[in-house]
This record gives sequence, C-alpha cells and structure tokens, in this order.
Amino acid sequence: MPSYTAPTRDIQFVLNEVLDVANSDVPGYSELEPDFTAAVLEECGKLNSEVLAPLNVVGDKEGCRLENGVVRTPTGFKAAFDQVREGGWTGLDMPEEFGGQNMPYVMGIATLEMFASANQAFAMYQGLTHGAASAILAHGSEHQKATYLPKMVSCDWTGTMNLTEPHCGTDLGLMRTKAEPQADGSYAITGQKIFISAGEHDMADNIIHLVLAKIPGGPEGIKGVSLFIVPKFLVKEDGSLGERNALSCGKIEEKMGIHGNSTCVMNYDGAKGFLIGEMHKGMRAMFTMMNEARLGVGMQGLAQAEAAYQNAVAYAKDRLQGRAVTGAENPDGPADPLIVHPDIRRSLMDQKSFTEGARAFILWGSTLIDKSHRGGDADAEGMISLLTPVIKGFLTDRGYDMTVQAQQIYGGHGYIEEWGMSQFTRDARIAMIYEGANGVQALDLVGRKLAADGGKHVMAFFDMVKSFIKENEGDEGLKKDFLEPLKAASKDLQAAGMFFMQNGMKNPNAALAGSYDFMHLFGHVCLGLMWARSAKVALAALAGGASDTAFYENKLTTGRYYMARQLPMTATHLARIQSGADVVMTLPADAF
Amino acid sequence: MPSYTAPTRDIQFVLNEVLDVANSDVPGYSELEPDFTAAVLEECGKLNSEVLAPLNVVGDKEGCRLENGVVRTPTGFKAAFDQVREGGWTGLDMPEEFGGQNMPYVMGIATLEMFASANQAFAMYQGLTHGAASAILAHGSEHQKATYLPKMVSCDWTGTMNLTEPHCGTDLGLMRTKAEPQADGSYAITGQKIFISAGEHDMADNIIHLVLAKIPGGPEGIKGVSLFIVPKFLVKEDGSLGERNALSCGKIEEKMGIHGNSTCVMNYDGAKGFLIGEMHKGMRAMFTMMNEARLGVGMQGLAQAEAAYQNAVAYAKDRLQGRAVTGAENPDGPADPLIVHPDIRRSLMDQKSFTEGARAFILWGSTLIDKSHRGGDADAEGMISLLTPVIKGFLTDRGYDMTVQAQQIYGGHGYIEEWGMSQFTRDARIAMIYEGANGVQALDLVGRKLAADGGKHVMAFFDMVKSFIKENEGDEGLKKDFLEPLKAASKDLQAAGMFFMQNGMKNPNAALAGSYDFMHLFGHVCLGLMWARSAKVALAALAGGASDTAFYENKLTTGRYYMARQLPMTATHLARIQSGADVVMTLPADAF
Repeated sequence: MPSYTAPTRDIQFVLNEVLDVANSDVPGYSELEPDFTAAVLEECGKLNSEVLAPLNVVGDKEGCRLENGVVRTPTGFKAAFDQVREGGWTGLDMPEEFGGQNMPYVMGIATLEMFASANQAFAMYQGLTHGAASAILAHGSEHQKATYLPKMVSCDWTGTMNLTEPHCGTDLGLMRTKAEPQADGSYAITGQKIFISAGEHDMADNIIHLVLAKIPGGPEGIKGVSLFIVPKFLVKEDGSLGERNALSCGKIEEKMGIHGNSTCVMNYDGAKGFLIGEMHKGMRAMFTMMNEARLGVGMQGLAQAEAAYQNAVAYAKDRLQGRAVTGAENPDGPADPLIVHPDIRRSLMDQKSFTEGARAFILWGSTLIDKSHRGGDADAEGMISLLTPVIKGFLTDRGYDMTVQAQQIYGGHGYIEEWGMSQFTRDARIAMIYEGANGVQALDLVGRKLAADGGKHVMAFFDMVKSFIKENEGDEGLKKDFLEPLKAASKDLQAAGMFFMQNGMKNPNAALAGSYDFMHLFGHVCLGLMWARSAKVALAALAGGASDTAFYENKLTTGRYYMARQLPMTATHLARIQSGADVVMTLPADAF
Repeated sequence: MPSYTAPTRDIQFVLNEVLDVANSDVPGYSELEPDFTAAVLEECGKLNSEVLAPLNVVGDKEGCRLENGVVRTPTGFKAAFDQVREGGWTGLDMPEEFGGQNMPYVMGIATLEMFASANQAFAMYQGLTHGAASAILAHGSEHQKATYLPKMVSCDWTGTMNLTEPHCGTDLGLMRTKAEPQADGSYAITGQKIFISAGEHDMADNIIHLVLAKIPGGPEGIKGVSLFIVPKFLVKEDGSLGERNALSCGKIEEKMGIHGNSTCVMNYDGAKGFLIGEMHKGMRAMFTMMNEARLGVGMQGLAQAEAAYQNAVAYAKDRLQGRAVTGAENPDGPADPLIVHPDIRRSLMDQKSFTEGARAFILWGSTLIDKSHRGGDADAEGMISLLTPVIKGFLTDRGYDMTVQAQQIYGGHGYIEEWGMSQFTRDARIAMIYEGANGVQALDLVGRKLAADGGKHVMAFFDMVKSFIKENEGDEGLKKDFLEPLKAASKDLQAAGMFFMQNGMKNPNAALAGSYDFMHLFGHVCLGLMWARSAKVALAALAGGASDTAFYENKLTTGRYYMARQLPMTATHLARIQSGADVVMTLPADAF
C-alpha cells in the first residue's frame, strides 16, 4: 500500500526562504514565523500521513453507495472527518468571527497540499465546503453568514457547488434549472444538476447546496443566472435543523477515480432556496471564487504527483533489477536497485523537478491572493487572475503526466490495483477536467486574461522576469544554468504573445488555435522563474554557510535538471503556436 | 456506449497506395490485390464493429472471475470467440499445413488493428495464442508442431507466455522457476509466474503455456533459461486430451484496465513440461518472437487511440456548447457543436494525424517483417529490429496520450464510466508497460540496436530519408510543408546519434540518460517520413485526377498538421539529449 510523508522541509523552504513570508507586509504575514508555520505543517503532515493516507486505498476500493436515498461513505471516512474537524483544519484561513483561525490563504494552500496528496477524494468534502463558505462570505447577507458560516467553517455542515446540468457544463447560459419567486421571499428551485461532488453523504448533519438557476423572466443566457443557498435541511431561526428540503440524490456516478467522493446527480423538486447576492448576478458571485477554486485544483495536480513520486522513489530504491551499466552498485545482491538506471532517474528527476517547482509556483500564487484580499493590492489581483488558468491547466496536465511516470516505474506492478499506483493516475485525471476543463483554461488565458486591463499584467510578468535576470546577471552561479535558459524561455513566451497580437485581431482563431500551447509555454516559464529564484536562495544559503548543505546542493541539482530538460519545451510550444490556425481549422468538420 | 467503425479506407490507402503491396516482390504479396484485401478488411471490420466492440464495455464492467479454480470470462465472450474462430481470423497469417490461411504478416497486422480497437482485452486471447504458436512454429520439433499447432492456429486451444515472476520482470536472469529433467525426457516445472494474460479461462478446450524456467546445473543468470511447453491438459498420442497437468491459476489480478482479459498468477507444481528448442537457449527462442509481439503491442497504442478518437469526433460534432469565436455556425440551435472551437480541433487533429501516421508506420514495419521472414532479406530484418522499440515505445506512449486527449473532449462525461471513454485510457495504459516497459524499449534502442551490425541499419534509415528528400525536392507541393520539416527533424535525429557516439563511449550514461528522448525523437521522424510519403501519394492522386479528391486533400491537410505541430518536438528531444547525463545522474540516491 502506498505511503505518504508530508514534504514539510520543502514547503518551509518556499515559505521562509523563497517567499520570506514573515517579512512581507501583507496583513497577517508577520505571524508566519518559521517556528509557527513549522508547527502547523508538522501537525497537519502527521494527521495526513497517519490518518488520511491509509484511507486513500479504502476509499478507492469501497467507493460511496447510495442506499434508500442515503449515501454511505467508505469505512473510516466519518471518524477521520471528525478528527479533521476537531483539529480545526477546516477553518484554518477562515475569519475568527465564524470560528476560523484567520490564517492567510497561503497557509490554507500549504496544508491543502497535504490533504490533496494523502487523500484527494476525502479532501474534496472539506474543499467544496470551503468554496461554498467563501461564496457566502463574499456575497451572502449578514443573516446568511450568521446562519450558515459557523457550521460550515467547522464542517459540521458541508457545502457543494451546483453548476453543471446534463446538457451544459462550460456553457452555463444553456442552463434550465429554474428558481420561482415565492411569497415568503424565497425561491422554489426545480431542475437537475449533475457531477455534484459531495452532493450527499453521511459525514455531516446538513449539506448546504449552492445552486445556479434562472429566475423566469430574467435575461437570456448566462446573464440571467442567479445563485441560491439550498440547504438539505432548512435551518430554523434558532439555528436548529428543520424540515427536509425537496431535494435528493438521484444517483452516484461510477467514475474513473476519486471513488471515495460521492459524485451525485442532484434533483431539485421545488426545493426552497435563498438568493445570494444580486438577482441575475450569479455568475459574478461564482467567478469571484474561481481563482481560489482553480488554484486549489492546480494544487491537486501537484499533490497527486508528489504522492505518486514518493512511492515511485521507494520502489526504485527497493526493487532489484538489472545492473548499472557503469558497474554493479549492489555487488553483494542479486541485482542493483532500479534507481541506478539512467532512464529511471530521468523519470524521477522529471517528477521531482516538477513537484518542487510547482510547489514554489502555487505558494507564490497564493501570496498574490493574500496581497489582493488582505492587502487590497490590485496589481496582485491582476497578476493572479492572469496566472490562475496557468496554475490550473499546466499543473494538472503535468501533474497527471507525472503520476503516469511514477506508475511506470513499477512496471506491471503499477498496472495492478494492489500497489496503489493506478489510483494516483485515476484520481489525478479529474483535475484536468473539473473546475473548467483545461482547454477552457487555455481559452480564458488567451481569450481574456492576456488582454485584460490593456495587457498590463502580462507586461508586469515579463518585467518581473526581466528584472530578476538583470539583477542577478552578475551571479556566475546562476547565469549559465538558470538565467540563460530562463531568458530564452521568456523570449519564446514573448514571441508567442507577439504572434497573437499580430494575428489574433484579424483572425481570432490564430490565437485560439495556439491557446493550449501558450498555457503550457507560460507554465514552463513560471516554473523556470521559480527554479531560478529557488537557486538564488540556495546559492546564498551555501555561501552563507548554512548547515544543511545537502538540501541546498540538491535543490540546485534539481533546478538545473528542470532548466536543462524541461524548459526546452518552450521552443516547441512556440513553433506550434507560430504555425498558426490554418493547419488546425482547414479540415472540413465531416472529414474528422 | 462507444462505437467503432473500422478505418478500412485508410488501411487500404496505406496498403495499396503508399506501400503498393500487390506490386512488391515479397513472396505472397502478389495476392494482395486491392479487391482481395478490401474484402478481407471489410469482413473483419464488420465482425469487429458488430460483435466485438459492443462487448468491450461488458468486459470492462464484468471482468473475469475465478471460482473454484475456473475462470469465467465476461458474458458473450465465449460465443464471440467462436465466431472469430469460425471466421478463420485466428490463423490468417499462419501456414496452411496447420490450418492457417498463409496470408502475409502485414494482413495479420492490418486486421489486428481492428481487433485491438474494438476490444483489446478480448483480442489478447487470440494474440497471445498467435505469439505462442509462432514460438512453437519457429523452435518446436516436428512432433510438437504437429501436436499443438493445428489446435492453436484455430484457437481451439489458446496459448500463453510465462516470463515474469514476483521478484523479476525485465531482469529474467533472476528467475527461480525450475525445470527438473524426468526419466521420460520431459521436465517437472515448479514455480510461480505472474501477470500471465489469458492464463486461465473458459473459452478453449486446452491452454498451452509456454514457460521460461531454469534447468538445475545450467549456467547462471539469463544464459541458463530454457523454454517449455506446459499444457493445461496433457495431449495423448492420438491428439485427444489426457490428464490435467499440475498447474493452476492462483489468483486473478485486479487491474486498471483490460478487465476482460484474465491476468493470472500461475502456479506450477511439478507440472509436466516439454523443452522447446535447445536447452539454455530459451531467451533466444523468446527473442525471435519479440519483434512481432512488440509490433503487436505498438498496434494496441494506435488501435486504442483510433477507437477513442472516433468517439471523441462523434461527441465533438454532437455536443452543443458555446459559440464559434468567428460567429455562430449553428445559429438556429442553442449553441454550436464543440468541433467549431479551435482548441477542440487542435486536439482532434493531434489524434487524427497521429493515428494515420502511426498506421502507415506500423504497416510499413510489417512489410519489413514479411521481407525478412518470407523473402530472407537480412537488411529488412536489421531495419525492423532497429525500429521495433520505436514502434512499441513511441506508439504506445503517444497512443495513450491520444486516448487521454479523446477523453478530455468529453469533459466531465469523459471521467464517468458511463460513456466508455475512461476505458480507452485505462486499457491503453498497459501497452506502455507489458512486452518490455517503454524505458526498456529505449534502452534496447540506444544500448543495443543503434550500434548493431556496426550501425549499419541506422545509417540505412538516414539514407532512406535523405534519398526520399533528394528524389522529391523538385516537388513544390511537398517541399515546404513536408520535406523541409522532415529534413530538420532528421537532422535532429542525426545530431542525437552523433552526441551518443561522441559521449557514450567514455560515459554510457550520457547515451542512456537520453534514451527515452531518443526513442521519441526517432518516432517523430518515422511518422514525419510516413506523412511525407503519404503526401506524395496524395498529390500524385490529385494530379492524376483521382475521383476521391476529398480523401486526398484531407490526407494532405492532416499531414501538414503533423509536420507543423508535432514534428517540432524533435528539437526539444535533441536539447534534452544534449544536456547530457550530469543533470540526471548527479543527485545522490538518498536525496530523491
């Protein structure tokens, strides 16, 4: 069975050394002293290694069962959920007035990595609740906040997001679920929603569904969509639970993975719902949470890659097969461990350099969210808006690829379920799809985010890279291995942006046909930047006589690998983009 | 539920127009007139679309069950297997004297595509039998051939290959299964073999296991391995079945996919076995079949990609979501079909250009096997030996990626099992692993095949590409879109080979650390060559006034896509290779 150890040392490296959070002027960051964050991360790591990771396989094997309208979660999930609740993990970055601990978002994300690595299906119950609570926090009335948030922050009640219907996912303008105004100010919600994660289960006293629906007579399409709170049990004035609402789980989907999470078809049959925020502005309410939710899904890409990598390493060190081509390294044994073979190392280095680079990327992105939300920094808001589709799309695509590579290390044993490596692959697959399929992320990036605010944010990104290179170009330790590849990759990214500018106006397809490659090109540049920043820190630590020399030397070695072996992908992405739209759009539809 | 239509037109294009098989001087090829092959392919396509494809989902859902030592295959499998047998499909390319139809191997592979697309798990029962029969045909005694082949060619009896043991897969020198000589000239086989596809099932009267084992006192390691025939039921002199042999299925593995195939742990408890070929030369006997078996697995990569692609196309045309950025294309409907979106087309073009290019590649490779086996052409033998790891490794890696892309087109519907797209991905995953994991293919290519016969075959490959470019450089229709990209890609391949030559002697890791990239680089050049050849044929057909102009124009469009959007990968692979071994080998093992 796979095991999991939280990579607290590396998370600390990013928080304290690369991002230097405690010395940032973001409100709340001064509390993030290394000793404090270490204590939080160690505790969280322990819970995840010891309690949630062992339940990962159980969740996969047992799945969720719908029996007489009740969904049974896998053995052990409920008790573990109680432990998570008791530890206060569900409200880590929620306001104190609703029972949270008011830590910055970056700490929420740092701990989320562990939950998503140890047991993604399980972590979704609290993750969806966090998302729904954030929506109520941002757009709910004072009464709604008081009614729902304390219970949701503690996860005594969990939450869901209801967007998709059988005939529409990305294009929510086609939505049919309707919300009819009632005399008491509430709405009667009627319709069917599908793919509702944690839609029904047995781990909480109540489930607060956030449902998108159309109020009859409103504008056509996406502009006529409103957002509603639709509780499973209605809540009385005194806060106690009242009658069962007219909603039910019609079916649990059989899925490729994340079996431990109940993915429900939800039927609303005139259920009582309460409008959140303004009428017909439901999408806006949804969109304000999207950066966070998408960043959380990007984290799943990294988290599954990390968990799969750890187990691939263990197997590569343990499994004896063949001899090193340069001479036996385990001469007294019947064969050498897999890890002596260059191609096994190539694969493990791919994985390691991805997860560490991705970790720095996503934690940096989280600080931008804190800067925006806590510090009111509009530039940070613009930057994270630009980077969000890259974090979601690139990290989940590459994270999935890494789980496939980790599985491959096991040979045939990776394909049978007994070893648990197939689960990482099957679970990681969903992150490329939900919360906006990755093709939609690419469209969002190229069709909207690039040109947002007159292209200001992408320019700021380029300036940031340029400044970093310029500031450090005198550093011989960085120059050849880090700054030069970063410069070349960044140049490719700029050339791609230029291509879109020159061609996209007269033919939008010229940009959109290259959107997916652009998202990946951008992602590589971001990881390249993160590695260059990490290398700078490592070199300084070594020069300053840090005691943990091995850590910093290994950091440099891993970074050099990424720059040498992954960053060259930018040239291919650029070539694809520059080949333009014709090769993509010419084939008649009936010739496919 | 997914459906499948055999791509007979495209297979015919490759056979008749690109390879011009009927006019080849390979013995038996003169019979491969277009009318004849069309009839065979149509019939085979019909069987696969109508009978085997509908059972694909059934096999996935039901799996195989071990009950009291008997393995039950999924509902419908046995009846379908009878139909396959009755059609004579199992012996298509087997000698007439054993009941086969004696068609060339290329026809076996052309029909295999259909079986592997329609139902990979099912096709493996006959595929493994074909492999085992080929081994007996090549290395068995006359008596063994007469005893086993007629029943195996008809698949009344099926076959298996027993190599892997719990502690060894790739490194078979560690094998523990032993074969003790008996007074009657037979051997008593004792040991455990794992991952035995079709090891036990209810579709045949007998199962002929080919088992690798060590005869005590023989050489150490891989040189002491011999190959044995170990029938489930011993065969009497009159050909009738005798007593049950001392072997049994201990367990069926739970796997990520190919549930319809029974993957067995096989226990041999002093089972009666009969030596095939020479003592201690078991690996040699296995290796002579390996080119064929690996080519067959490469075909699975293509076949699953083809099946997944067909369904992705259907969904992309049917599902209405969003509007074309250039204006509504389905203005009377609520939205446009997915296929109007550039990124959806980008994905479909990736898939289409891969499957068609791969089809040409693998059918060309099959003609090399025919040239070698039927025509005694040593150069063809050398060339296919070189290309085999590329066919196996590159086509299964890329084929898998294409199933993932096809699944992605479905959004959330791709992740739930109901639509069947997850199965293509899960089934395709195994082809990257079995019959030599793809890392081992890369090792075989760079560590052995490149330098084989003094590098003669890789030189011949380069000459072939160079000649093609030179012969056609006056053709303006080919030059820019096909010849120039092919030339650039081929140059990258040569540069990679040069890097290995210059660095691999003093440090073998310098070559092996780049082996995986080299395998992919080689694969892209092969597909580039196939596309250039296909384009030449298409241009000639159009110039010659062919009636089916749309087919040839679409062929050119698809080829242009591959050259513009896929071939640039060669530059990245080269850059990775040229970064050398240091970034791969430096990290201490305990730092992973």
